[in-house]
Amino acid sequence: MDTIGRLLVRCPDRQGIVAAVASFLSASGANILSLDQHATAREGGTYFQRTEFALPSGRLDGLRTAFGSDVARTFGMDYTVTDTATPKRVGILVSKIDHCLLDLLWRAQRGDLDVSIEVVVSNHPDLEAAVAPFGVPFVHVPVTPDTKADAEARQAELLAGRVDLVVLARYMQIVSGSLLQAVGCPMINIHHSFLPAFVGAVPYRQAKERGVKLVGATAHYVTEELDQGPIIEQDVVRVSHRNTAADLTRLGADVERSVLSRAVRWHCEDRVVRDGKTTIVF
Amino acid sequence: MDTIGRLLVRCPDRQGIVAAVASFLSASGANILSLDQHATAREGGTYFQRTEFALPSGRLDGLRTAFGSDVARTFGMDYTVTDTATPKRVGILVSKIDHCLLDLLWRAQRGDLDVSIEVVVSNHPDLEAAVAPFGVPFVHVPVTPDTKADAEARQAELLAGRVDLVVLARYMQIVSGSLLQAVGCPMINIHHSFLPAFVGAVPYRQAKERGVKLVGATAHYVTEELDQGPIIEQDVVRVSHRNTAADLTRLGADVERSVLSRAVRWHCEDRVVRDGKTTIVF
Amino acid sequence: MDTIGRLLVRCPDRQGIVAAVASFLSASGANILSLDQHATAREGGTYFQRTEFALPSGRLDGLRTAFGSDVARTFGMDYTVTDTATPKRVGILVSKIDHCLLDLLWRAQRGDLDVSIEVVVSNHPDLEAAVAPFGVPFVHVPVTPDTKADAEARQAELLAGRVDLVVLARYMQIVSGSLLQAVGCPMINIHHSFLPAFVGAVPYRQAKERGVKLVGATAHYVTEELDQGPIIEQDVVRVSHRNTAADLTRLGADVERSVLSRAVRWHCEDRVVRDGKTTIVF
Amino acid sequence: MDTIGRLLVRCPDRQGIVAAVASFLSASGANILSLDQHATAREGGTYFQRTEFALPSGRLDGLRTAFGSDVARTFGMDYTVTDTATPKRVGILVSKIDHCLLDLLWRAQRGDLDVSIEVVVSNHPDLEAAVAPFGVPFVHVPVTPDTKADAEARQAELLAGRVDLVVLARYMQIVSGSLLQAVGCPMINIHHSFLPAFVGAVPYRQAKERGVKLVGATAHYVTEELDQGPIIEQDVVRVSHRNTAADLTRLGADVERSVLSRAVRWHCEDRVVRDGKTTIVF
Repeated sequence: MDTIGRLLVRCPDRQGIVAAVASFLSASGANILSLDQHATAREGGTYFQRTEFALPSGRLDGLRTAFGSDVARTFGMDYTVTDTATPKRVGILVSKIDHCLLDLLWRAQRGDLDVSIEVVVSNHPDLEAAVAPFGVPFVHVPVTPDTKADAEARQAELLAGRVDLVVLARYMQIVSGSLLQAVGCPMINIHHSFLPAFVGAVPYRQAKERGVKLVGATAHYVTEELDQGPIIEQDVVRVSHRNTAADLTRLGADVERSVLSRAVRWHCEDRVVRDGKTTIVF
Repeated sequence: MDTIGRLLVRCPDRQGIVAAVASFLSASGANILSLDQHATAREGGTYFQRTEFALPSGRLDGLRTAFGSDVARTFGMDYTVTDTATPKRVGILVSKIDHCLLDLLWRAQRGDLDVSIEVVVSNHPDLEAAVAPFGVPFVHVPVTPDTKADAEARQAELLAGRVDLVVLARYMQIVSGSLLQAVGCPMINIHHSFLPAFVGAVPYRQAKERGVKLVGATAHYVTEELDQGPIIEQDVVRVSHRNTAADLTRLGADVERSVLSRAVRWHCEDRVVRDGKTTIVF
Repeated sequence: MDTIGRLLVRCPDRQGIVAAVASFLSASGANILSLDQHATAREGGTYFQRTEFALPSGRLDGLRTAFGSDVARTFGMDYTVTDTATPKRVGILVSKIDHCLLDLLWRAQRGDLDVSIEVVVSNHPDLEAAVAPFGVPFVHVPVTPDTKADAEARQAELLAGRVDLVVLARYMQIVSGSLLQAVGCPMINIHHSFLPAFVGAVPYRQAKERGVKLVGATAHYVTEELDQGPIIEQDVVRVSHRNTAADLTRLGADVERSVLSRAVRWHCEDRVVRDGKTTIVF
Repeated sequence: MDTIGRLLVRCPDRQGIVAAVASFLSASGANILSLDQHATAREGGTYFQRTEFALPSGRLDGLRTAFGSDVARTFGMDYTVTDTATPKRVGILVSKIDHCLLDLLWRAQRGDLDVSIEVVVSNHPDLEAAVAPFGVPFVHVPVTPDTKADAEARQAELLAGRVDLVVLARYMQIVSGSLLQAVGCPMINIHHSFLPAFVGAVPYRQAKERGVKLVGATAHYVTEELDQGPIIEQDVVRVSHRNTAADLTRLGADVERSVLSRAVRWHCEDRVVRDGKTTIVF
C-alpha cells in the first residue's frame, strides 16, 4: 500500500523550481498524482506549489527530511509534507445557531469530510443535545464581558495543541488576538454576508435595508482585525423585495453552511495558502 | 386589436384595494392579463400593484381618467396608466467603454428590448463609429472640471423632455444633483461591483486587493449620493487567485452588460417601483 | 388573532375572475396578503390563482362554503381553502442514503419547514438510528421482487389517510401505479440528475461518461411513468474533468437536498399547481 | 522580448513525466509560467499536461524539435508547441440568428478574444450587413437538399487550410462527416440546450413542454453523430411557468453566446483536450 503525501511549497519565484521538485520526487520513488502551482507575478513574485504524490509506505519521513536539505535550502522554500491518511484534528467554536455546526458534524460522520472533530466548545449550553449523537465532546464555556479573559484561557486550554484547525461555526463572540495566538493554529470563520459588504453585526438586516438583490456568506481566516481576514470562499443566493429579513436569514443559512463546509474541506486538503491579505485556493 | 395597458398603483395599504381595482377594470371592459402586488408590512404598510390588461382599442385615455375619479381618489393612490405599444424613449450617457452601450443598442435594434434609443451622449468622441451602424445620433459633449456646468447644461438640453429614461452605460463622470433635476426623468447607472462592496473608483482593483472570490455588478437608480441609489439588479461571477485585475475587468464586463440590460428591460416594462432606498421588482 | 388562509383556484380563463374573487374576499371580511395568478394563454387558456388572506378567526369554514356557492360555481372553479396554521402531514420513503432525509427532518425540527413529519418508512433498516433523535417513527418494510405487493400494501397502510404528502427522499424502488393510487396523496421524488437528461439508474455515472460540465437534481411529482412527472424544482452545480463519479455523487448530494427541501416547502405552502405535465410554482 | 510558448502533451501515464518535461524546459532556458496536468486514472491511465513558459525569442522552433527527440520519444507522447503570439485563425458558419456571431466578432475586435476571424460563411444572406462593420469577409453559400454536396465543397474550399478552428455560431444545417473531414480542423458547435437533454430540433419548445425550471446551452466539438460530440462548456439560466417558449429563446440566447465565447476562448488558449467522448479543460 502506498502512502499518499502532499507537499506544499512557497518561495521566491525563479526558474527551475518545478524541475527541481519533480526531479526530487521522481528520484525519491514518488509518483506525482496532481500538481498545482501559482506565481504572484510574471517575474519577481512569490511562487506556490501543491503536489500530491504516491510513495511506497514508510518513506514519507525520510522524504520530508531529504527535501529540506536537497531542494528547500537551495530555493529558500517554506514547505510542509503531510500524510493524507492522517485527517486534520478540528475544534469547533459555536454559540446558539446550529446549521453550520451540524453540517460539519454530519459530513465528518458520514466520511464526506476527512477530518477528526475533537471538541465542540460553546458559550451557551443550547446545542449540547444536538452534538451528543455524534459522540463529540461538548464543552460549555460561558463568556461574559467580565469573564472573557478566563473564558479564553479555558478555550485555549481545550484547543491549543489538540487541534490543527479551529472553526468558528457561527460563534458570536469576537476572538481576541491573544486567544488566536494562544491557540496557535489557523481559525476559519463564517461571516453571514458577502464581505466586504456588511461587516459587523446583523448583516442580513443591513442587507434588507440596503435592498440588495443577492445575499451571501464568506468563509475567511480569522485575524485580529474583525471580518478582514483572507477570504477562502464566498457564495450568494438571490433574494427579492418579497423576502423579509427573517427570510434572508433562512436563505443565507443554506449558503453559510455550504460555504463553510467547502472552506473547511479545502483547508483540510491543504489546498488553501495564505498570500498576504488574500488566499490561493488550489 | 386590443390595447395592452399597464396600471401601476401605490397607496397606503388597507382592505379592499385588489377588489376595487379589479372590479373597476372589469367594469371598464378590461381583461386582467397579469397582476402583481406587494405590501411592505402586514398592516399599516405601503401597497404597490402592477396590472397588465387588455382593453378594446381607443379606450385607454378614458380608463385613465375614470380610474382617477373612481378609484384612486378613494384610496389616496399615486398611479400611472401606460400603453405598452409606446416604447420608452431612452438616452444613453457613456464614456469610452463600449460593452454596456453596444449591448443596449443591439438589443433595441433586434427588438429584444422594447425601447426607442433617442441619443447617445458621450464625454469622449471614441465611440462615435461604434454607434453609427445603429442609426442613433451620437453627440460628443466634452466634460472638464472647468466646463462641467456648461457640459451639464448641454446634456440637459439634449435629454430633458426628450427621453423617459437616461442610462449611464459606464459613464465615468459623477452626475450632479442639478443635472439629475434638470433632466427630470429616472437615471439608471451600472456600477462595476457588487454594491455596497467597493463603492467609488476602480472597484475591480479593490476586489483584487481584498481577494474576493466573486465579482459583481449593480444596476441602480442614480441619486445625489454616489453609488447609494436604490438597487434594481445585481449579479456576480466566480473568480480566483489566477485572475488578474485585468481578468476581473473582462469577466465583470459580461456581468455588467447583462445586469444593466435586465434593469433597463424591467424599468421599461414598468416592473420597478422605488420604495425609499430600495426597489420592488415585479 | 386572525386566521391566515390560502385559496387556490383553477378554472377556464375569462374576464372578471380577479374581481369576483377579490370582491368576495373583501365582502367576507378577508384582507388579501398576497395574490399570484397565471393564465396559460392570452385567451382560452386555464386560469390559476393563489391568494393568501387574513380573516377574523373562526370564519374560515364558512368562507370555504360560501366561496363554493357564490363564486366557484359561476366560474366552474376547482378550489381549495386551507388554514396556514395546520401544517401538512408528511410521510417519507427512503432507502439507505441519508442526506435528503436528514435535511427534511432537521428543517422540520428547527421550524424552518412548516410540516409535521409523521413517519419514515424504509426498505432497509440502516437509517433507524439516524432518525431516532428526531422522535419520528421509523418503520422498516423490506421490499424484494417476491414481496413487493405485500410491501406496498404495508406502505399504503402506513401512509394512506395519515399523511397529506409522501416524499421519496432517495427511495431506490420504483413506486407502482397501484401504490400511488392506494396512498391517495401527492408524492414528490428527488431524481439525482437534471431531468430529462439521465433518466433511470446511476445518473452520476452516466453524467461522468457523457462528460457534462454541470450536474443537477430534479424534484418532481411521481406519476406512473418513471422520471416523467411534472417538475417542481431543479438546480445544478459545476463539475470538471478532475471530478470522479464519486465526486459527482458528493457534489450532487448537496444539490439534491436543497432542491428537494425547496420543492417540499413550496408544495406545503400551496405554491405548486400541476398543469398537465408541468407545474406552476407561485 | 520573450516568446510565450504553450506545450500540450498526451501520453500513457507513468512515473517521472513532470520531472522530464520540467527539466527539459529548464535546461532549454524556458521559465514555466503555469502548469496543469491530469491523469485519467491513478494507475494505467492517460496523462495530459499543459505548460505555458517564457523563452528568449527565436528559440521556439528549436525547442519544439528538441522536445521531440529528447522527451516525447521516451514517453510515447503526442505533443504540440505553439507560440501564443500567433492567434488562431477562425472561420464561422452561421445561418440567420446573430447573437453568437456578433459576440465573437465584437470580442475579437476589441481584443477580448485573441483570435483572427478570417471569414464568415452563411447559408443565408441576412447577416451580411451586420458583419460588414467588422471588416471580415462574408460569403453566402446557399444550402438546399439538392445542392448540399456542392455547398459543402464550396465551404471546404473557403475553410480548409485557411483556418485553425471552425465555429458553428447557430448554424442550422447538419455538418456531414465528409465536410468535417474535408475542413480538417476542429469544429465547435453551440447547441441551445443543456445536453444531453433536448437533442435535435427546437430544444426550447421541447424544454417548455417538459416544464424544466432551467434552460441551458452546450458548446461541444462536432463529430459525425449529431449533438453527441465532446462537451467543452455548459451553462443554464432559471426560467418559470411565466416564460413562454419565446422567452426561453431570448433568455437562452444570452447563455448561448457566453457559453460559446468561453468555449472558443479556451480552445484558442489550448486549454481544451479531447479525451474520447469527453474533454479536459485546463
